Amino acid sequence: MADVSRRGLFGAGAGAVAGVGLAASVGLARPSAQAEAAGVSGQTYSPFGAHQAGVTTPTPAAARLMALDLRAEVDRAALGRLMRVWSTDIAALMAGRPAAGDTLPDMALGGVSLSVLVGLGPRVFELDGLRQRTPVGFQEIPAMRHDRLTDAYSGGDLLLWISADDFTTVAYAARRLVHDAAPWADLRWSQQGSWRGIGKDGQPATGRNLFGQVDGTGNPRGEALDRAVWSEDGWLTGGTQLVVRRIEMDLDEWDRLIRHEQERAIGRDLATGAPLTGGDEQTPLDFAVLRDGEPVIADNAHSRLAHPDHNRGRTMYRRGLNYADDTGSGLIFCAFQSDISKQFIPVQRVLDDFDALNEWTTAVGSAVFVIPPGMREGGYLAQGLLE
Amino acid sequence: MADVSRRGLFGAGAGAVAGVGLAASVGLARPSAQAEAAGVSGQTYSPFGAHQAGVTTPTPAAARLMALDLRAEVDRAALGRLMRVWSTDIAALMAGRPAAGDTLPDMALGGVSLSVLVGLGPRVFELDGLRQRTPVGFQEIPAMRHDRLTDAYSGGDLLLWISADDFTTVAYAARRLVHDAAPWADLRWSQQGSWRGIGKDGQPATGRNLFGQVDGTGNPRGEALDRAVWSEDGWLTGGTQLVVRRIEMDLDEWDRLIRHEQERAIGRDLATGAPLTGGDEQTPLDFAVLRDGEPVIADNAHSRLAHPDHNRGRTMYRRGLNYADDTGSGLIFCAFQSDISKQFIPVQRVLDDFDALNEWTTAVGSAVFVIPPGMREGGYLAQGLLE
Repeated sequence: MADVSRRGLFGAGAGAVAGVGLAASVGLARPSAQAEAAGVSGQTYSPFGAHQAGVTTPTPAAARLMALDLRAEVDRAALGRLMRVWSTDIAALMAGRPAAGDTLPDMALGGVSLSVLVGLGPRVFELDGLRQRTPVGFQEIPAMRHDRLTDAYSGGDLLLWISADDFTTVAYAARRLVHDAAPWADLRWSQQGSWRGIGKDGQPATGRNLFGQVDGTGNPRGEALDRAVWSEDGWLTGGTQLVVRRIEMDLDEWDRLIRHEQERAIGRDLATGAPLTGGDEQTPLDFAVLRDGEPVIADNAHSRLAHPDHNRGRTMYRRGLNYADDTGSGLIFCAFQSDISKQFIPVQRVLDDFDALNEWTTAVGSAVFVIPPGMREGGYLAQGLLE
Repeated sequence: MADVSRRGLFGAGAGAVAGVGLAASVGLARPSAQAEAAGVSGQTYSPFGAHQAGVTTPTPAAARLMALDLRAEVDRAALGRLMRVWSTDIAALMAGRPAAGDTLPDMALGGVSLSVLVGLGPRVFELDGLRQRTPVGFQEIPAMRHDRLTDAYSGGDLLLWISADDFTTVAYAARRLVHDAAPWADLRWSQQGSWRGIGKDGQPATGRNLFGQVDGTGNPRGEALDRAVWSEDGWLTGGTQLVVRRIEMDLDEWDRLIRHEQERAIGRDLATGAPLTGGDEQTPLDFAVLRDGEPVIADNAHSRLAHPDHNRGRTMYRRGLNYADDTGSGLIFCAFQSDISKQFIPVQRVLDDFDALNEWTTAVGSAVFVIPPGMREGGYLAQGLLE
């Protein structure tokens, strides 16, 4: 993607998408016409542009993340073939067309907010010829004290993150892409999650996790978002890095707390998402306010410890998904940043040591992926790395 | 529900709901204003009326079915206490209010198409005092040749079928209701599924299963729907009977078929759902049409064998849900009828013997439930049975 320019970031395809993503994902109340234009459903995203769709585009209702492992014999050239196949499939599917040779073409729909985000796991950068091209700061997450990781949701050489308005479309795209990867890669794990990105009034809203917490308010916007997320590191320019953590929530114990205890652990009002120091959801947290000599936003409150002010300005862009199924209940925590080593890891070390929420949350899965930039028409994903 | 009259069926609450359900579920193209009025999302259903919501109301995107088993010591009176608790919870939740004592009240939303359908399994009618009140025709499904049933998705003394626009709301309601049942019943199994009940144009549509098949076209409507579904059997008047079958689909093999083979097995055009004998989705099947001396709709085509014309007029109301997760892919087939012994069972025997689709489908779960009528304001579910 050597030809990506700053102008390119706001070109016809990705620019429109990025603008929509920003407006919708921060959950601002908007007049109705704008809300429709920034709709979290019924969208068609371009597979082309500076960035892949599915990073800062609004989070639609349904999602599946799948990690695949490359077969032992796959080398750089073979990975390039897989990326060409997937890129062709993705360009068709996101445009509402079936992939070539699909026997279920009627399942392909436009206007269903479909995006397919492709990522590359650490082992890709152990392939011959790619060792020197590992993005700066891309690394596995070190063991944290509160982790109880299982292989069932950890690791992986490749990521497919399929988002859409409905799970039927997600299942259709997932099958096609896993099937077409069969010569080169096998499914390692799969996680499904959902998000309700609209409020009571039908307007875009931040959404709640299963603790009942408004989750994602503090996401950066505008230039701060661009700085936090998009890489300017060589071939990865316009791409980003992703951490996926499956966080099991102890909802039974959470339910036993009184509301004051829940809000104290978070540092925000549960009803509105506003800081306990007052205002509305978008009001900045005021960490200096005391009541009876104690900080209103507790020293170990999640929103204090995760805040950029307490992390040397470090921030990242979170796009979470709720899950509740036979495996348990919790959050598929996903965070994009340009440098995992400087963003997620130091913030997570602080949270692992002090976060009040640790009492009711446990990481049971962990994976990291490099998210290549968007593709050019006629090009393919990760072309800048692989060609 | 001795006070249910024919007039009651079209009263303010359930009547409006039933009308909407009919318009939306048969997938007719409607002018836009009507489609909004008959929206499959953004609805608020009444918990009161002649029928429970969640039978003929439109199928929203997200659903969970949960079966619970009564504890050994639960008798008729204790079951009545559970039903009163659930009824109070359900009346609050469906109105968008939290259940009493809920520590996560912000999760309760109106206008999210929430319905909670409650059912009673066979063992309820073995409790003292209830043996004589088993509804006519209510029975377990006999073993079928193609069944490969597992306990993981079979049986159960009670059913909760929670439907809503989003899985966060479903998870919230599910936790509340299972929690509040804890003194009397334990979770036996849980199945999640989804449905896309709108078409490309945003209008209500029949929807597709994971075979790509438009699924549900043949559902009865109007008076035929009323006759097929609603019981007039004593205390169950206004209620119905439900069969839940988890049907695993062999999608890999299905994908290997050419389109003609898929359509031949179904008897309908995959793109439109129209009969292979022509017309559009709503055109009646014409079983007499031959081509080269062979019936155009094959003798073993699913749509022929399941059709009322080949089943002495027997019909039922289907409300299916797609699932695709770590357990597999398929359809949670749900069929409502006034008499399982005269409707589902004889039709299923024919299908088990001859249906072309048997090659790619396997029932892995089976359960039956009596669905009590709707409750009165100030009353509770199954009151006519238990009081």
